[in-house]
Amino acid sequence: MATQEQIEGRNAVLESLRAGRKIYRIWIQSDARGIAIQEIRQLAEKNRIPLEETDVKSLSQRSKTGHPQGVIARVEGWRYASVSELLERAGQQPPFIILLDGIEDPQNLGSIMRTAEVAGVHGIIIPEHRAAQITPAVARASAGATEYMPVSRVTNLVRTMEELKKQGVWFIGAETDGIDYWNSPVDWRGPLGLVIGGEGKGLGRLVKEHCDALISLPMLGRIGSLNASVAAGILIYEVVRHRSSS
Amino acid sequence: MATQEQIEGRNAVLESLRAGRKIYRIWIQSDARGIAIQEIRQLAEKNRIPLEETDVKSLSQRSKTGHPQGVIARVEGWRYASVSELLERAGQQPPFIILLDGIEDPQNLGSIMRTAEVAGVHGIIIPEHRAAQITPAVARASAGATEYMPVSRVTNLVRTMEELKKQGVWFIGAETDGIDYWNSPVDWRGPLGLVIGGEGKGLGRLVKEHCDALISLPMLGRIGSLNASVAAGILIYEVVRHRSSS
Repeated sequence: MATQEQIEGRNAVLESLRAGRKIYRIWIQSDARGIAIQEIRQLAEKNRIPLEETDVKSLSQRSKTGHPQGVIARVEGWRYASVSELLERAGQQPPFIILLDGIEDPQNLGSIMRTAEVAGVHGIIIPEHRAAQITPAVARASAGATEYMPVSRVTNLVRTMEELKKQGVWFIGAETDGIDYWNSPVDWRGPLGLVIGGEGKGLGRLVKEHCDALISLPMLGRIGSLNASVAAGILIYEVVRHRSSS
Repeated sequence: MATQEQIEGRNAVLESLRAGRKIYRIWIQSDARGIAIQEIRQLAEKNRIPLEETDVKSLSQRSKTGHPQGVIARVEGWRYASVSELLERAGQQPPFIILLDGIEDPQNLGSIMRTAEVAGVHGIIIPEHRAAQITPAVARASAGATEYMPVSRVTNLVRTMEELKKQGVWFIGAETDGIDYWNSPVDWRGPLGLVIGGEGKGLGRLVKEHCDALISLPMLGRIGSLNASVAAGILIYEVVRHRSSS
């Protein structure tokens, strides 16, 4: 039997509907307004999904994130992908994968998934332990990107890196002691794994040793670090820039 | 008489102490541990700031953000800067200013302030109305960057742009219908104002018309937009990249 889960928030529910995910039931706040809510109602009706009108109070009682934004849905459980599925998704392009070495904040994980989806990344790999997993809060923070961005969950990140290296993937690690990313002699256009460390901790020792290059974002101010999802965003778009410009 | 305000969270309180801001009192959770907490205790003692031991319950009753992370401080009120102070801060460098046209989410405002501080931006300009102001929640989300990053609050963003144009500042607006930022013939090294629109709304019509160039971040996926603070971070570092590479 498929697992079920609850997703919350306008974008998350809307993207589930658009993606054609199996949805068992939707709870919607009767007085909620806006384009997204309108489209949710239309798609629910079109796809004959049971839609229950509710008030703000009972919706917030049902909410697990505390921010349902007027709508909650019960959907088929989220499915992790295999690493080879991520590679297949690249098709004829050189793969562009992101490895998250211990991102613990669901907000950051969701935000990174959103950026990755928008930037055309082929997939994300996360470790099974000591890291945020795909939960309703992550789906909400991802603005629905969890519907499109495959995530593979592995027991041992280093072993996965070793296997991918055999398939020609190059790993770039983001580290404070790397060289400025714009000076790095990296082949940005080849098969690439961008490795981002956890909040405040950075990359694990072994993961770092398995990177082919270490790059860093120069810090010119007095605060010593960027938010993890912002740092990831800057580096993801650096890859996009190199791959898009001819 | 100076206004007072409450700041919360380890980084925010620690950066206030480091920056030498006037602090009237600190409440600290007795069993809170970690390097930041240790340094807060040391700096408070050194600067003879009254420090009150408390438990998690009474701390959370005192909290306004809901996430005090073990420490709250009452400090001298935050002071907005004038636009000319932002320009003076640039010194011999060409000014690099960020204008936020209606960022409403304190989390995004704080995150943008953090990125701006780390990237060496000279100052931020926000409108007085329909936009997040500098609050304890913003200070917390900024990881303490509010202590170092001057923010100017103006009644009319367009008029401020007109005045700055007379002083040679060029405005680049981030818009979905701009040209890919890496193809934009912008003088990234000259006096620059980067204009970021509000979440979901983008730039106001008049603000957009006053921009000298419109750039955009290419969207290659199915989700149609990036988080505002991630988009700002990518463009801020694009400026840093152009200014740093020789």
